[in-house]
Amino acid sequence: MHDTEFETRAAELIEAGRFIDGRGWVPATSGNFSARLGDGRIAITVSGRHKGRLRPEDIMLVDAAGRSLDGRKPSAETLLHTGIYRRYPEAHAVLHPHSPASTLLSRLVTGAVILEDYELLKALAGIDTHATRIVVPVFPNDQDIPRLALKIEEYLVRHDRVHAYIIAGHGFYTWGKSVADALRHVEALEYLFDLETRMHGVKR
Amino acid sequence: MHDTEFETRAAELIEAGRFIDGRGWVPATSGNFSARLGDGRIAITVSGRHKGRLRPEDIMLVDAAGRSLDGRKPSAETLLHTGIYRRYPEAHAVLHPHSPASTLLSRLVTGAVILEDYELLKALAGIDTHATRIVVPVFPNDQDIPRLALKIEEYLVRHDRVHAYIIAGHGFYTWGKSVADALRHVEALEYLFDLETRMHGVKR
Amino acid sequence: MHDTEFETRAAELIEAGRFIDGRGWVPATSGNFSARLGDGRIAITVSGRHKGRLRPEDIMLVDAAGRSLDGRKPSAETLLHTGIYRRYPEAHAVLHPHSPASTLLSRLVTGAVILEDYELLKALAGIDTHATRIVVPVFPNDQDIPRLALKIEEYLVRHDRVHAYIIAGHGFYTWGKSVADALRHVEALEYLFDLETRMHGVKR
Amino acid sequence: MHDTEFETRAAELIEAGRFIDGRGWVPATSGNFSARLGDGRIAITVSGRHKGRLRPEDIMLVDAAGRSLDGRKPSAETLLHTGIYRRYPEAHAVLHPHSPASTLLSRLVTGAVILEDYELLKALAGIDTHATRIVVPVFPNDQDIPRLALKIEEYLVRHDRVHAYIIAGHGFYTWGKSVADALRHVEALEYLFDLETRMHGVKR
Repeated sequence: MHDTEFETRAAELIEAGRFIDGRGWVPATSGNFSARLGDGRIAITVSGRHKGRLRPEDIMLVDAAGRSLDGRKPSAETLLHTGIYRRYPEAHAVLHPHSPASTLLSRLVTGAVILEDYELLKALAGIDTHATRIVVPVFPNDQDIPRLALKIEEYLVRHDRVHAYIIAGHGFYTWGKSVADALRHVEALEYLFDLETRMHGVKR
Repeated sequence: MHDTEFETRAAELIEAGRFIDGRGWVPATSGNFSARLGDGRIAITVSGRHKGRLRPEDIMLVDAAGRSLDGRKPSAETLLHTGIYRRYPEAHAVLHPHSPASTLLSRLVTGAVILEDYELLKALAGIDTHATRIVVPVFPNDQDIPRLALKIEEYLVRHDRVHAYIIAGHGFYTWGKSVADALRHVEALEYLFDLETRMHGVKR
Repeated sequence: MHDTEFETRAAELIEAGRFIDGRGWVPATSGNFSARLGDGRIAITVSGRHKGRLRPEDIMLVDAAGRSLDGRKPSAETLLHTGIYRRYPEAHAVLHPHSPASTLLSRLVTGAVILEDYELLKALAGIDTHATRIVVPVFPNDQDIPRLALKIEEYLVRHDRVHAYIIAGHGFYTWGKSVADALRHVEALEYLFDLETRMHGVKR
Repeated sequence: MHDTEFETRAAELIEAGRFIDGRGWVPATSGNFSARLGDGRIAITVSGRHKGRLRPEDIMLVDAAGRSLDGRKPSAETLLHTGIYRRYPEAHAVLHPHSPASTLLSRLVTGAVILEDYELLKALAGIDTHATRIVVPVFPNDQDIPRLALKIEEYLVRHDRVHAYIIAGHGFYTWGKSVADALRHVEALEYLFDLETRMHGVKR
């Protein structure tokens, strides 16, 4: 029996990876992507693959707790994905690009990136005016993923209107109702992060 | 009966969108484009579509006052397009890229961007020497589009030789006798805006 | 009778234009390119065409004095091309990209750009060590092309080892024994100009 | 008899060159690439070819001492490749991009580039945490390649955990167990070098 929903989501993640890599946002084998299926299983990238050249066999299945359902090894950061899905029932896709602007920005600010007065903020779900102040928290990087996942989940539970977070020196995470939705967030956020880094380099 | 003129203009807008997106100037679903037909109707992008991946069904028709002629919802900023067509009878295309350089520049200057001594100014209609001083006004962003449209139209009526305007944090608008003409303006202006932002970042 | 040499050179210029435009170095309808044939006639781009989308009919013929041989109008800057061919008998191609880095650099330096200690200088004809000091003169822009051509020619006659020159706010000119040779110079010089502009923006 | 291993490695180097050139990291005819075969012979790029447009005949064979095995002239920097293979028995590919970021960085730092606290360091062989301090030595450029090779080899012998080195004004060298491995290093290092150059241009 074909698992059509899985195949459709996998194809969307592969295509998203090609787009994201074309912009230079998943260098080497960095980044990871996932989509949640209707039955709660999660399609996610296998560990160690180049995200711009994914093939169907590079997408695997895990359960809601991040346990492999097919014997293969998922991304080391699977628990960050499952934490996001737990917190946001409406989320059906999580994208983690390892983008230059978010990585650079995490070295220039402390604690959070503040985005305001940009029309493009309206590309984020639920925002309908540029006169908005979006806080993107920056968490210190940690190789202990369960510990990092817990810390992030505690933050997400205590805050509303979070659309993304940055891990210092490590890119950012964003999510959406669909892969297309999450990809729109990636494109808008990286654009805004890039402008913010350039603001640090300019004289006013 | 086929509406050949509409189809030709729609194809030109789709191709312009592909070019503009390839350069990174319409991230997410930002930007909007239009072309005025011989009978005064305006072909314009439907609200909320990705401008780099437009299909024929993503271009619709509105009248000179911006009212939908086919029941679909045009871009939220349709009134800015109709205002430009009203002011410039010779204009037959309006392009609004949401480009990084114009958005960044709107945060660095107050009131207007001044472009002078660039050979590429000759790419703008009616300019035949680099020894020209072009004023590109910067308007504050406003979610009340009728109010913003009125403010811009008042400016355009009182000033000659305006080739483009920037909306702060929101990209720029330019126009031309044809889609090709407007696209040449987009390419030249974004190039010059980019140099200007870089001038702010350099030591002299 | 087919003019095979002309067709071959025209095809090379078209391909060079596609490469140069892909990098963003001939925005709008800027830039112009030429190649000298064995009999002294010069194949050159017709005025006003987009250099990234040239077709065979966009390349025309002029004589060594820059006079049209086929009734069409050559680039406004044809006399700069013929001046280079007059000064350098071995030159058989001239490329003029309107690149951002050379245009920006012309606003940051006075009189000349000095390139030294770059391995890539060896990409220039006759240079075999990075321990070289290359002077790229910057001339003020001038819409009076015969006057500008004369001024440049006087400089070229009085100086040896000139590989390129910049016109302020207007891009640069370089040349070579073949289109491939001139294109290698374009690629190397734009790379070095870009690094130089970035040196102006960094703290040491 | 077909030399299948040579052909496979040559095809990988050609493809790597296309990728590297697409990012702008081997302008003009700069850069050079090699792969070591099972029998110790080394497939290496012929001198003077454009690395983004390599054909099978642009890859030749040298022995472990860098002597041509087929009468053609290998890259002028062949001795740097053979020195790396001598020092690292597990290395089977060496890539030398002439990238803008590494070239610019070599003008901003003295002696070495220090990379630390970047998640992407984990893309380097043997690194499993961002909490790592990687030293990338910068050697002065030298047209006397045997002398430069000797100096570098002395450094490599005396230091452990070297993943790459920069030659000032001349790009960088990195290596790996396979062409794919070395290419992953190229992608990760150029990303990090680029962030480092941008750190020099920003205010904190």
